Amino acid sequence: MNIILLKPEEIDGNDSVVLSDQRFNHIKTIHQSVAGDSVRIGKLNGKIGTGTITFIDEHGVTMDVCFDQTPPKKLPLTVILALPRPKMIRRIFRSISELGVSELIVINSYKVEKSFWNSPILEDEKIEEYLIAGLQQAKDTIMPTVSFKRLFKPFVEDELPGIIANTQALIAHPNTGDPCPANLNQSVTLAIGPEGGFTDYEVNKFFEAGFKSIHLGSRILRVENALTALTSRLFSPY
Amino acid sequence: MNIILLKPEEIDGNDSVVLSDQRFNHIKTIHQSVAGDSVRIGKLNGKIGTGTITFIDEHGVTMDVCFDQTPPKKLPLTVILALPRPKMIRRIFRSISELGVSELIVINSYKVEKSFWNSPILEDEKIEEYLIAGLQQAKDTIMPTVSFKRLFKPFVEDELPGIIANTQALIAHPNTGDPCPANLNQSVTLAIGPEGGFTDYEVNKFFEAGFKSIHLGSRILRVENALTALTSRLFSPY
Repeated sequence: MNIILLKPEEIDGNDSVVLSDQRFNHIKTIHQSVAGDSVRIGKLNGKIGTGTITFIDEHGVTMDVCFDQTPPKKLPLTVILALPRPKMIRRIFRSISELGVSELIVINSYKVEKSFWNSPILEDEKIEEYLIAGLQQAKDTIMPTVSFKRLFKPFVEDELPGIIANTQALIAHPNTGDPCPANLNQSVTLAIGPEGGFTDYEVNKFFEAGFKSIHLGSRILRVENALTALTSRLFSPY
Repeated sequence: MNIILLKPEEIDGNDSVVLSDQRFNHIKTIHQSVAGDSVRIGKLNGKIGTGTITFIDEHGVTMDVCFDQTPPKKLPLTVILALPRPKMIRRIFRSISELGVSELIVINSYKVEKSFWNSPILEDEKIEEYLIAGLQQAKDTIMPTVSFKRLFKPFVEDELPGIIANTQALIAHPNTGDPCPANLNQSVTLAIGPEGGFTDYEVNKFFEAGFKSIHLGSRILRVENALTALTSRLFSPY
């Protein structure tokens, strides 16, 4: 947690905030902060800045807050991701916001087990929690846009052409296409399949929509490593 | 598990192997293989090839094995990593072998809690298990070299100069140095700090030894994402 994220409604009219949840625990036990200390904070979907502790005891912390810096820029990147297995969701969603992905579209795919769509881990509150964890790691405040598309064919046929307009549309698919390029200077739409990969039918639908395939070499990476590896290559550090 | 790894001593003189552990479970329940089917296999520290199932029931599987292909090349990369917190060890060691790192040297650092060194997760058997999991994901067979250095100063002063000879020596340190380069064509020694980073004293010891600092931009990534992001940028897909 490299910044403490605050929701706008948590900040009162005097630019003061009272915390007693796990963010307080972090300030109290990890930072071991005392009154007068300052901590890095951010306003969700707003600026980052400084919180000055005016009071802290074993129950909570009160801070005066000031937001004066812009958060890191987002990557010009939309990720289209086959729904991962539930136990991977937390890590992957946290990485999405940590890496600075602007938009995530989670889609169905033949190799996605139907039961995954009913996982309680996909509740809005959980997803928000994981995304905020990634933002707090990366000192970012801006939530990525996240949507879910349970029907593959209508998505790729009807929605995908609009999504990829004015972007470089790439599908990560082992053993095909070109090596993943480095340091692109344009917006990218990047499709990543499920464990076991997209089917040939699905890959062809992406090709029909205008995608080109790229690969990361002869090693097959787990989805969460592929996401980080691809993102890190596609854009230079910023 | 994209290949099933076998230890040489598991293969009998007739090039046959019997499995009844989690590798058998994988063949039985994930692949749902039957007699006559073939599975991708590898010999630990040897070649990859094909196993042909001659018998399978609810207790185990028997395969005829043949090894005829070379595994993916390793990256010319030595990673020097501050000991991660125990709950991250599994994922990070799995990624080390999955990504193709040749050598891992785990070191102490001021911000590494002393208790981490006593974690039961650092037992040889556990470490081997995590490394093998990464190899099986990446269809690799060659175990990376792993060593542990509990004394920072003797390591950086006495051992490091020999380790980095004829390599590009880079230390990942946020907000300093150059952006992480892409697609290098030489061997690299890459140092990655603990959560919270190396101290100034430690960074200076690396500088004295000949390291240059690189960064991944304004976002602070978790160690496991930094490892994947750095590795993916430094070498082109191979």
